[in-house]
Amino acid sequence: MDNKPIIYLDNAATSWPKPPAVWEAMEHSMRESAANPGRGSHAMAVKASRVLFEARKRLARLFRIKNPNDIAFTLNATHALNLAIQGLLKPGDHVITSTLEHNSIRRPLEALKRKLGIEVSYLTTNSQGELDIHLIEKAITSRTKLIAVTHSSNLLGTITPIADIGEIARRRNVRFLVDSAQSAGALSIDVEAMGIDLLAFPGHKGLLGPQGTGGLYIHPSLELEPLMQGGTGSKSEAPEQPTVRPDRYEAGTPNTVGIAGLTEGVNYVLKETTEAIHAKEQQLTFELMEGLKHIQGVHILGPDVGIERTAIVSFLLEGVDPSEMAFLLDQQFGIAVRAGFHCTPLGHETAGSYETGAVRASPGYFTEKSEIVSMIEAVKEISRTLRTIN
Amino acid sequence: MDNKPIIYLDNAATSWPKPPAVWEAMEHSMRESAANPGRGSHAMAVKASRVLFEARKRLARLFRIKNPNDIAFTLNATHALNLAIQGLLKPGDHVITSTLEHNSIRRPLEALKRKLGIEVSYLTTNSQGELDIHLIEKAITSRTKLIAVTHSSNLLGTITPIADIGEIARRRNVRFLVDSAQSAGALSIDVEAMGIDLLAFPGHKGLLGPQGTGGLYIHPSLELEPLMQGGTGSKSEAPEQPTVRPDRYEAGTPNTVGIAGLTEGVNYVLKETTEAIHAKEQQLTFELMEGLKHIQGVHILGPDVGIERTAIVSFLLEGVDPSEMAFLLDQQFGIAVRAGFHCTPLGHETAGSYETGAVRASPGYFTEKSEIVSMIEAVKEISRTLRTIN
Repeated sequence: MDNKPIIYLDNAATSWPKPPAVWEAMEHSMRESAANPGRGSHAMAVKASRVLFEARKRLARLFRIKNPNDIAFTLNATHALNLAIQGLLKPGDHVITSTLEHNSIRRPLEALKRKLGIEVSYLTTNSQGELDIHLIEKAITSRTKLIAVTHSSNLLGTITPIADIGEIARRRNVRFLVDSAQSAGALSIDVEAMGIDLLAFPGHKGLLGPQGTGGLYIHPSLELEPLMQGGTGSKSEAPEQPTVRPDRYEAGTPNTVGIAGLTEGVNYVLKETTEAIHAKEQQLTFELMEGLKHIQGVHILGPDVGIERTAIVSFLLEGVDPSEMAFLLDQQFGIAVRAGFHCTPLGHETAGSYETGAVRASPGYFTEKSEIVSMIEAVKEISRTLRTIN
Repeated sequence: MDNKPIIYLDNAATSWPKPPAVWEAMEHSMRESAANPGRGSHAMAVKASRVLFEARKRLARLFRIKNPNDIAFTLNATHALNLAIQGLLKPGDHVITSTLEHNSIRRPLEALKRKLGIEVSYLTTNSQGELDIHLIEKAITSRTKLIAVTHSSNLLGTITPIADIGEIARRRNVRFLVDSAQSAGALSIDVEAMGIDLLAFPGHKGLLGPQGTGGLYIHPSLELEPLMQGGTGSKSEAPEQPTVRPDRYEAGTPNTVGIAGLTEGVNYVLKETTEAIHAKEQQLTFELMEGLKHIQGVHILGPDVGIERTAIVSFLLEGVDPSEMAFLLDQQFGIAVRAGFHCTPLGHETAGSYETGAVRASPGYFTEKSEIVSMIEAVKEISRTLRTIN
């Protein structure tokens, strides 16, 4: 496959390609400033510290965060969600979440059910992945500490009404955690206006940075128990993790080179604007859906064409196993999609695809219209071949 | 400083420069295989999975690990140590460690003292950082679950007799965790022969890989509680983290691009051999010590010249604050060293430098003899100037 052009429709897993400035910044960082930030005062260490602060500033601008130091860098969004969930919850706490969630929310919650005896309410969405927010209001009890939801389903593309939920959380004095795995860089996010206390984001999806990056915004009024303890370059003499941010949540050497790349990814998003990115991605998504839905045997999951969603199209072709479909698309057409359960078994249950899983095609900002056409033609051909055989 | 040649003597924090193949592999990964490993079956995802497995194989060869899947990748060595310590210990457990440890061992242990009521014995080394291993044998009780020590002090360069401690641990049925932050890639490590149950390593120091990489070897007979839960690309339908390795300990998207670079760093080490690397580094270190010790007012911490150590030379110059020394070396001579407490307050207490901290110069495999000479000359000049002023 090395020299065959690839049609990459797996951007919901990791966006690709990246703006050239991303890896140019990484190369520069490897050559010029790959020393330890915050651990020394020499010129290279100072440069490395600046790389981190610059990234925090750009992310703060994107998410409308007042203090860049309220952002802690993590290995990925899963790490950020674990820090948020494990760092906040105490025995007896109650959490409200939805059936749409990725395993990166469900599994940490299930682990705390076993370990601490927390209680979790999974609110069921409709088959389109839409959550009735009145259910949230009703589910709140005196023990409810947290509402944790994804901004957009990684299976269905459905967009959660974050600002409305944030309003409920604020009014009812419950903390609000948003998983922006599918929305950071693709939808506008304003932590203040949306009432978000904790925002987990990956660096390698819509923010166009490299893998190995991600982070968590932590509202200044919150103090989490750190997930990891260790060297911070500050208050070395204290046996406990310092309270100063971001050090408290960033033990050990950060991924400076990756974060240098992330800064350029975020710069790209800021320059293009999330509005323009979302508009283009949604257009491509609707075109893909429109083309697929007329193919015999195709069933598309999630909201209908015309209803706002992120760039995710999960579908089934009658009589074809999703993994076979993905294999055929890859081998015969050079099209990269993803088959399976997408780490969201309850999501599939809700959507009615629990037995089979689904094929997920996810365009990105760099996807071309012609590639969408090729994808539609490929599925058409697979469908046609199948009918000829049977 | 951008165009001024830097004499980089901060390799104990992060090694620099890296072999060119490291960056070349990272760039290739960003261009060709930056999809999600283990999450899809398309060609790019398969390539990404291969990147991870190749890295595991090379590391397994370096550390004499039988099954590459017993290695879990982490953000850094601190993450690996937290996974080991938090994943293993239960309420009532007793841990034996030393006063030489970095905060990445001390702080997680202190946190578990508070949270779980574990008990920790800090064995005091002599001022050279040498641990009397009979003290370990004596400290073991029926509740002792773990011995956790660094292979080499990040302050003094002292080498811990790992194989001897491993023998005690095995005989007394206690688990053995080794922090190889200063030894991985610089000293030979054989997990079987040395009786190591848990080996935490950084990718960005002696292994010559980029920041954002590291890992933990976990003996097959051990099952740790994962530090993070989330998507693994395997057994998506289960609410709990799968038991299969390495998935159990690697929730979320790994740092594929960083790990691609790490593979090349490890390849470089395997080709040169740790024996040759250690011999060269020790030679440079002894030359540096020899030159510094004759300068008026200089006091070198740790073992004497001629006693085996890793490439770390911490010292004090009478009448000069370590941070001032580091500042002068950086600004006037373009030499990068590190001043302060190096995240090991108890180590400084043991070495007698708790009030002041120290200046740490750490050569690497790419350091040239002429750079060592320049460093010695620079300290001489600072010492001379100081005496002229006073």
